[in-house]
Amino acid sequence: MKLFTIHKAILLLHFIFILGHKTMQAQNGMIVFQSDFGLKDGAVSAMKGVAMGVDENLRLFDLTHEIPAYKIWDAAYRLEQTVPYWPAGTVFVSVVDPGVGTDRPSVVMKTKTGHFIVTPDNGTLTLIAESLGIDSLRQIDESINRRQGSAASYTFHGRDVYAYTAARLASGKISFSGVGPFRAPKVYTLPYQKALIQDGIIKGFIPIIDVQYGNVWTNIPSTMLEQAGIKQNSLIEASIFNKGKRVIKEQMTYGNTFGSVSPGQPIAYLNSLLNLSLAINEGDFAKKHGIANGNEWTIEIKPVK
Amino acid sequence: MKLFTIHKAILLLHFIFILGHKTMQAQNGMIVFQSDFGLKDGAVSAMKGVAMGVDENLRLFDLTHEIPAYKIWDAAYRLEQTVPYWPAGTVFVSVVDPGVGTDRPSVVMKTKTGHFIVTPDNGTLTLIAESLGIDSLRQIDESINRRQGSAASYTFHGRDVYAYTAARLASGKISFSGVGPFRAPKVYTLPYQKALIQDGIIKGFIPIIDVQYGNVWTNIPSTMLEQAGIKQNSLIEASIFNKGKRVIKEQMTYGNTFGSVSPGQPIAYLNSLLNLSLAINEGDFAKKHGIANGNEWTIEIKPVK
Amino acid sequence: MKLFTIHKAILLLHFIFILGHKTMQAQNGMIVFQSDFGLKDGAVSAMKGVAMGVDENLRLFDLTHEIPAYKIWDAAYRLEQTVPYWPAGTVFVSVVDPGVGTDRPSVVMKTKTGHFIVTPDNGTLTLIAESLGIDSLRQIDESINRRQGSAASYTFHGRDVYAYTAARLASGKISFSGVGPFRAPKVYTLPYQKALIQDGIIKGFIPIIDVQYGNVWTNIPSTMLEQAGIKQNSLIEASIFNKGKRVIKEQMTYGNTFGSVSPGQPIAYLNSLLNLSLAINEGDFAKKHGIANGNEWTIEIKPVK
Repeated sequence: MKLFTIHKAILLLHFIFILGHKTMQAQNGMIVFQSDFGLKDGAVSAMKGVAMGVDENLRLFDLTHEIPAYKIWDAAYRLEQTVPYWPAGTVFVSVVDPGVGTDRPSVVMKTKTGHFIVTPDNGTLTLIAESLGIDSLRQIDESINRRQGSAASYTFHGRDVYAYTAARLASGKISFSGVGPFRAPKVYTLPYQKALIQDGIIKGFIPIIDVQYGNVWTNIPSTMLEQAGIKQNSLIEASIFNKGKRVIKEQMTYGNTFGSVSPGQPIAYLNSLLNLSLAINEGDFAKKHGIANGNEWTIEIKPVK
Repeated sequence: MKLFTIHKAILLLHFIFILGHKTMQAQNGMIVFQSDFGLKDGAVSAMKGVAMGVDENLRLFDLTHEIPAYKIWDAAYRLEQTVPYWPAGTVFVSVVDPGVGTDRPSVVMKTKTGHFIVTPDNGTLTLIAESLGIDSLRQIDESINRRQGSAASYTFHGRDVYAYTAARLASGKISFSGVGPFRAPKVYTLPYQKALIQDGIIKGFIPIIDVQYGNVWTNIPSTMLEQAGIKQNSLIEASIFNKGKRVIKEQMTYGNTFGSVSPGQPIAYLNSLLNLSLAINEGDFAKKHGIANGNEWTIEIKPVK
Repeated sequence: MKLFTIHKAILLLHFIFILGHKTMQAQNGMIVFQSDFGLKDGAVSAMKGVAMGVDENLRLFDLTHEIPAYKIWDAAYRLEQTVPYWPAGTVFVSVVDPGVGTDRPSVVMKTKTGHFIVTPDNGTLTLIAESLGIDSLRQIDESINRRQGSAASYTFHGRDVYAYTAARLASGKISFSGVGPFRAPKVYTLPYQKALIQDGIIKGFIPIIDVQYGNVWTNIPSTMLEQAGIKQNSLIEASIFNKGKRVIKEQMTYGNTFGSVSPGQPIAYLNSLLNLSLAINEGDFAKKHGIANGNEWTIEIKPVK
């Protein structure tokens, strides 16, 4: 009997250890912040201060804080571009929130890859939910997961709710279930045009401009180019439309290095996501042709015979 | 007698332990940097390298490095906005220093909340000294607290003195008393207009523009609005003056969410510091009306009956 | 015999300990990133995510990501300005790479001071190789040191090769020899004009503009001013040339603090590298006179008698 009790105790301890271990693996103590706050004031730093106040052992990083103000689409795209390169268990905070103070729910999405994203559910999760898959979705219970003494401030959810909740989650102070109640695994989604081939023409749109260089990124994957019989180092014709009206029609090489065309010449290439992109070698394609991003900007590609 | 000695030894050990513990609590190994250096060159990174050279276990963060060049007022405001959200024991370095190389003293202020701020005493501490209170003030003894081999460089105190001293302090390599001699607990202060009610009109000024969105922040607290009988969702009239000359007079709703007015419409709301602020929903109030910040920019608010 | 064996075992353990210790000292677990990616998208964050995926205990920092696009000279200069202030054993990643996808070799340079720099060998190492000295140079073996699954992406070496290799090196997962084969200790070098005295005139060039303030930095060291008999607080005449054509000729005080001239007045001073620099007190010298940086911009200094 006594032995049995000891045995049970050991089993229990073992169980607790495994549980604890599992919890430790679930979140890895890292938070990556994204917002449209910019870096000119103290808003980002205040979020980080709140996180360090929760647990001084957290490691804090940034995705970007230069999302154009209120551009949810861009926030969605930057997450899509970046999250997969971080270890499973990393907690992301994305605060682009034109509806702050209104009724949009605040959620934490766990992806099938084990990443967590803390955000208003306003379209920010459109792309990442689709590409990584939703493991589960919880609504933040602000009666628990809200910085003490912050209830009177209506407008800085990024600091008082999102950073605070992310820090509690990333540090393991709460498990994922501690975030708040389950929601149906369905996020608010922004519409956009999928890539497809129609009558030998590839159609897609311009999800983002590679702002530093002015390269025009599309949602057309390399596999679709192969499918359409477009080979490396062949010539293609690209047409770009804004709300259906043609802005440019231009021929260019589909190459694999910028160096394969002269400075100043256009080139189509595969970007780091293996999607078709348009650039000018040592130049700025978007600026030269006045191209921007979003679902109103569509593109058509065909081989030049 | 022997027992007594042992007792004394234990007491002494206890005392040392408590002291050690207190020292550990005093500083927490975190440094937060602020400057007007920008992020385009290596200046901020050099400061951090010096800090990591002092102790590789320090954790380094940023407030902002985009303070407009030489604008001490803005440095003061960003500290005020951010310091309270960091854990006690955090060491801040603020280097906005038009007088570098002149006789302004270099100090470390300990606030009543247990935060440390390393800075030239040139007005940078104006607001934070008032709001958090001065626990004590020490002048940096540069004969000790200066990076080895840096004496010949006149112009980079941020790296050679401030970052170095902050790292020594934050890591516990020196205690607060190791910074240098005590000064009277009084900092150099920039003048500004306090918020007040006069003949039913609330007067204040514009300490800062929320640069990312162009929102105009005032120093008028929510409590003063209540005192003046201004209720949420009522109409107010705001007048803004530059050096006493009226720039705008406009009526707007005092609401609690941007969503409560149409895009393009002005709104008065409480910002994250619970002070009155003026914005345009999805727009830029400061840019539209040509409003800037500083003590030359005053504001008057009254209810619309 | 037995004793001898034990002795040998102890010696061996000692040896292993020393080796281990040496390895630990070689790299210190810190990575400092530099690029021309800017901070508006997810590129820098993806690099950091890859690094944290290699080892979650790494500590990650930034030099700058605002190198003007493709300006290898500026990348070289920022390393020169910053690397020496970091502890030995720090690993730097510099990705300014107009030739990405072409044949320029990817290397890791170990300096004589024990710093590591991971970069394309395209001129980025010009200055730092000269000032800190090359201990040894290795070419990255991309068959080993490349993020799994990234072989199909031609254009993001920064993330897939440089960040990944840097993380493996910084964490000690590989030693320096694990980077790849030795190369002759000679890096690709950009030409520039050395500082010299000719007929009593000091000649040099403008390696960089201190962008935040518009101060014009030269490569003329303080010792050369002394050699030319120019004393603090004396008057000098500075001429600046673009491709040999004079842009300005102006007299100014060679002072040691900005405060020694009135606001709006020019001053020559020693910058934080102890090189001669030109500024306007509380103004922007470069903007006012249209001065830029690079080897096409030369300067002549002489004392005013």
